[in-house]
Amino acid sequence: MLQIVVAQLLLPAKNGAGSYDNVGPQTFIVQIRHADTHQPLDGIAVGDIGPKYGYASMDNGYMLFNHCRVPKSAMLSRYAEVSDETGAMNRHGHPAVVYGSLTFVRGQIIMHARLVLARAVTVAVRYCAIRRQFRDRDSTNDGDEEMKVMDYPTVQIRILPLLATTFALHYTGEMMHTLYHKSRETIEKGDFGPLAELHSASSGLKSLCTMLTADGIETCRRAMGGHGFGGGSGLVGINADYLSKPTVEGDNWMITQQVAAHLIKKMTAAVKNPSAAPQDPTDELFQYYLNNRDHRISQNVVCAGTISDQSIVDVFQWRAADLSYRAYQARVVEKKPWTRLMIQLHTLSRAYSEQILVTTFHNSLNETASSLSGPTPDVLRTCFRLYSLYTLDAFASSFTMTIAAAEDSVHALPDAILDLMMELRPHAVKLVDAWSIPDWLLESALGRSDGKVYEELFDMAHRRNPLNKTTFNPDYRSEEIVKGSGDKGDAILAKL
Amino acid sequence: MLQIVVAQLLLPAKNGAGSYDNVGPQTFIVQIRHADTHQPLDGIAVGDIGPKYGYASMDNGYMLFNHCRVPKSAMLSRYAEVSDETGAMNRHGHPAVVYGSLTFVRGQIIMHARLVLARAVTVAVRYCAIRRQFRDRDSTNDGDEEMKVMDYPTVQIRILPLLATTFALHYTGEMMHTLYHKSRETIEKGDFGPLAELHSASSGLKSLCTMLTADGIETCRRAMGGHGFGGGSGLVGINADYLSKPTVEGDNWMITQQVAAHLIKKMTAAVKNPSAAPQDPTDELFQYYLNNRDHRISQNVVCAGTISDQSIVDVFQWRAADLSYRAYQARVVEKKPWTRLMIQLHTLSRAYSEQILVTTFHNSLNETASSLSGPTPDVLRTCFRLYSLYTLDAFASSFTMTIAAAEDSVHALPDAILDLMMELRPHAVKLVDAWSIPDWLLESALGRSDGKVYEELFDMAHRRNPLNKTTFNPDYRSEEIVKGSGDKGDAILAKL
Repeated sequence: MLQIVVAQLLLPAKNGAGSYDNVGPQTFIVQIRHADTHQPLDGIAVGDIGPKYGYASMDNGYMLFNHCRVPKSAMLSRYAEVSDETGAMNRHGHPAVVYGSLTFVRGQIIMHARLVLARAVTVAVRYCAIRRQFRDRDSTNDGDEEMKVMDYPTVQIRILPLLATTFALHYTGEMMHTLYHKSRETIEKGDFGPLAELHSASSGLKSLCTMLTADGIETCRRAMGGHGFGGGSGLVGINADYLSKPTVEGDNWMITQQVAAHLIKKMTAAVKNPSAAPQDPTDELFQYYLNNRDHRISQNVVCAGTISDQSIVDVFQWRAADLSYRAYQARVVEKKPWTRLMIQLHTLSRAYSEQILVTTFHNSLNETASSLSGPTPDVLRTCFRLYSLYTLDAFASSFTMTIAAAEDSVHALPDAILDLMMELRPHAVKLVDAWSIPDWLLESALGRSDGKVYEELFDMAHRRNPLNKTTFNPDYRSEEIVKGSGDKGDAILAKL
Repeated sequence: MLQIVVAQLLLPAKNGAGSYDNVGPQTFIVQIRHADTHQPLDGIAVGDIGPKYGYASMDNGYMLFNHCRVPKSAMLSRYAEVSDETGAMNRHGHPAVVYGSLTFVRGQIIMHARLVLARAVTVAVRYCAIRRQFRDRDSTNDGDEEMKVMDYPTVQIRILPLLATTFALHYTGEMMHTLYHKSRETIEKGDFGPLAELHSASSGLKSLCTMLTADGIETCRRAMGGHGFGGGSGLVGINADYLSKPTVEGDNWMITQQVAAHLIKKMTAAVKNPSAAPQDPTDELFQYYLNNRDHRISQNVVCAGTISDQSIVDVFQWRAADLSYRAYQARVVEKKPWTRLMIQLHTLSRAYSEQILVTTFHNSLNETASSLSGPTPDVLRTCFRLYSLYTLDAFASSFTMTIAAAEDSVHALPDAILDLMMELRPHAVKLVDAWSIPDWLLESALGRSDGKVYEELFDMAHRRNPLNKTTFNPDYRSEEIVKGSGDKGDAILAKL
């Protein structure tokens, strides 16, 4: 009956009768339906927009107003109000305060993304650890069983890097949560300094993490072959619902501009004053970059089969800094049009966000090591390396172009990734079990925690599928719609 | 009632009473339901498997046999039969003949893929040419309109390379069709020589093209923002249905092994006898590669802003040949385990198939030029360049590692791609119109050929959405379910 309506507020212009100044979007409480009949009031058209891809639990609507009068008292005036005396707009507080909750929501989206991805990965890992197909091509023993598909590198390369990604997202989500609450205190005291950095990081990560998860669900589904396409996978609904996320709360391609604008601003400041006291890790990184860019030597991430964790962090950070510098150079020095740079800026945001994921994951290895027992710290390190090297390999030319990583070590990545996956393989089922996602939430025959994949698939199809309770008559000329019903199908027709 | 059943045929082993030899899968005509009651016969469990992701028009079923007797006369014996006298298996004709129709179906899948992708691209191009959002960030004129989103490079980079891809797929689909019918004649004469090459090409292309289309639909949908998630996009159903394609008719990751095995065989032969008369373009390419690999100079695809079409074809072919040689080296010379090489072999298949798309597209430019008028040949050349350079950029390190393309020209790709997209932009709507996909097939408010996007969206939501015909009572304590119905909602309850 009542709704919060966001609308552009036009106020009479001071200089010129009949013209208006737009003072931006404001919020109003408006009655839209009649209290008794629940019909829309005069001048209001409102309704449900109809089917969407998924996310049916959200009843998105449309609303049009035609000469609809709203009293001034309906305007929510915590941060802005129109003066009764002068008719002017008075704003209270810092305008940036709205970014606080935006940042909070985007931070939560990271934690949500990691759990949704964990659901998809749980299903894929469990099923592929049960499913067998084909004997090893080099097998010479007729008695050899068919291989578990999880032992094929072509299945591993699709699922195991995503398994590692769930943990990368987890530690960054936790870090952002802590950072938000720490910054919140500073902001409450009126110091808006940390907000820009927080907003930039949360925007870049929202874009990257929701994309990784949206794409990852489908990658997991396809890795499961034909049964992945079946309703027993449990991934059909989760995919349809999740596909809203790359668009809502700031479109994934749009908001990366905010990240790039922030980084260009920071780089401009760093170039201007390379010895100012750094306010945050980005300042530190940019100062380090500017001090070293003239004598940079590209790093060997993998050297003679040995992986250097410190070099991994270094190349991700260096690449982000170098791409920031290129963006600064193009926009500030060469004054290129913003629109022409948009793809470059999107790439920058992604590189910067990947650097956050890698750095935070690496930090967490040290922070969590003492509280974890058994092989867990080593397994998490393998996850860290797999996520990092897989990402490095996917964007290899970006790392060599920026003189972050050495060409030779980039060529060694595919072999290193194969070895990491073989290391991780024996722990894969335990790692997804660690996410503790209950069977009722997975709602998946393939992802059952007890591994009874085929029993459940048969039960779903043969016993619980209502289609199989009715034997339809294939002879369309007959009046007996359901075979043996004796009622000419009246019971079914009544439902139509 | 009757079904063709594919089952493993076991025949009594000659050496040993009670044991059986498996002579492979054979086909049988089996009665599975009673002619009158349509109930499954004794020992047969059969039914519908239940919901799938999409493709609801296909009623996939399951079937189990328990001690079900089938007479020998039920076996389809065109190519293999069991002798009445000896009980032995007699095979007729060439066993490879089954690959003929497999190849034909995979060829058709390419043409289908290009049309499905064209549907998605048509919707995206038309909508993004209507939709406006935000003024140019560098605009200084208050009177400037908001930009059409199709003019943002971040929208172009997602849609225009896919528009170019539809034509790349088209010309290769046509070429495969011609090649199939030409090879068919040779095969009918008993010469199975061309079949291996045809089967390899059709497998690699099936994998590549269905992946490009499946991913491309979703890329187009996301490029349309919030309305892309809405039911008015027309891409929801097409996506759900098409997602079966990367799996059916040979899983996209599995069948690339067949391509790689063929290429390794060809390279082995070429190394053994580098001056044998070439039987097909692959032989020619491999001989050229082996003759030149010692003094290869990487090519400049883009040099001082000028694109060399001949170099584009060269680098795609060289990369495919070099990756073939690496696979030969790893498998034949170093005798590495097949399973360990699987990812490398998948990459090889993709590179080889991309080479087919690029080469065929380039050939078609010359073949079609004389029959096309106006700017069309130039526009198609832009499509050729955009598809090729976009693909090159996405796998840049693979081209530099194989000494196919020069590092410097790879770094020039993003700028060259931006320019190509600006060239193509004015022709984008006409190019999708050229696919002539009727509105009733698109079934999309966003993709209407007359551009009446918002009129149609409003009509769908406000006038045709049945949810809005009923005003539900938000007061759950009331017995009046539908406001103003006067029947306490009986009409609705009767449907349940």
